[in-house]
Amino acid sequence: MAGYVSDAVIRRLPGYYRHLQELEREGAQQISSQELGARMNLTASQIRQDINCFGGFGRQGYGYSVPELRENIGRILGIDRIHSMLIVGAGNIGRAIANSNSFEASGFQTTAIFDVDPQKIGTRIGDLTVMDMADIHDYIADNKVDICVLAVPANIAQAVAQELSSYGIEAFWNFAPVDLKLPEGCVLMNVHLEEGLQVLSYRMLNKRPR
Amino acid sequence: MAGYVSDAVIRRLPGYYRHLQELEREGAQQISSQELGARMNLTASQIRQDINCFGGFGRQGYGYSVPELRENIGRILGIDRIHSMLIVGAGNIGRAIANSNSFEASGFQTTAIFDVDPQKIGTRIGDLTVMDMADIHDYIADNKVDICVLAVPANIAQAVAQELSSYGIEAFWNFAPVDLKLPEGCVLMNVHLEEGLQVLSYRMLNKRPR
Repeated sequence: MAGYVSDAVIRRLPGYYRHLQELEREGAQQISSQELGARMNLTASQIRQDINCFGGFGRQGYGYSVPELRENIGRILGIDRIHSMLIVGAGNIGRAIANSNSFEASGFQTTAIFDVDPQKIGTRIGDLTVMDMADIHDYIADNKVDICVLAVPANIAQAVAQELSSYGIEAFWNFAPVDLKLPEGCVLMNVHLEEGLQVLSYRMLNKRPR
Repeated sequence: MAGYVSDAVIRRLPGYYRHLQELEREGAQQISSQELGARMNLTASQIRQDINCFGGFGRQGYGYSVPELRENIGRILGIDRIHSMLIVGAGNIGRAIANSNSFEASGFQTTAIFDVDPQKIGTRIGDLTVMDMADIHDYIADNKVDICVLAVPANIAQAVAQELSSYGIEAFWNFAPVDLKLPEGCVLMNVHLEEGLQVLSYRMLNKRPR
């Protein structure tokens, strides 16, 4: 496997994985970089470049084996295993993630959801019961937790992340609109929904006229 | 204002806007590129480069005026106005967005939510009543709709987007895990939640050891 790979390439990998999954379902065995590019709105040379970053997997003139490439990209992404997720915050976003089964289907299993609100603690969300934030330390000590989903208000997100990282959590999927400062060794993925809307607003204002 | 601005710069603008809003709330009048960079985990020269893309707004040795820069970036993003949003799909994500008031607070107002499910049509989500998808054409004809939120299953997202664009909708905030093909003149922002989780998984696997 290659050394440094740019963030832009890594962010495209899940798209490759998704398209290859669809191709597998359609029964495709082989695909050329041209065909894959047309599907993904990328050029054939972009496709070849991206895949070369990870050591090839194709043969000149034969294209790529769909199942092999899908499997290899899955392994590179680390999604060939189960990840257990704990959600902090049983508000709109926390509930939506807990209720969704699309993450579960790809190996990201929500195993617990916590809140501080006495009105929410003890209520059911799908198969889960909302637990008391006061018990989160014990829960983490007793259970395997790979990822913490931060679905808390912006003003407490940093404190919650800090607390959880002191309990050993090293991966955060953050929905709060803040730039978290995390200890060395932690990894982070931000979903700043509102900022996405603002980028959409920019695109609306700056699109080429029809 | 400058001509072509890269997507990477545009995607950073909402972060600038958020930090400048916070600074304004804290009562800051002026900020240097060094100070702003430290807050945002960017270098001072990156900050100056980004802001120069849009024609400056700073004075050598004085830094930036916080309220002016915030206002200018808001204007560039087009968030100095109200956007009305229509949600298609009253599932987990559609409900979470309809129930949230953080979008509303920054001028993105959800004005209607539609679904095809007779069990959902007529039910209340916050201040809204879920409407019948069969009535969406009439609704769009009679009301100002700036943005359509696609919170529908992947297998129908393309068809729904096509239908709505034929009714004149030109901006889509898409939560379905598909690469939509939209007519010329349409703009799109994707939120592929599951793909973000996969990138997080990659980062977990490839982080430098503590």
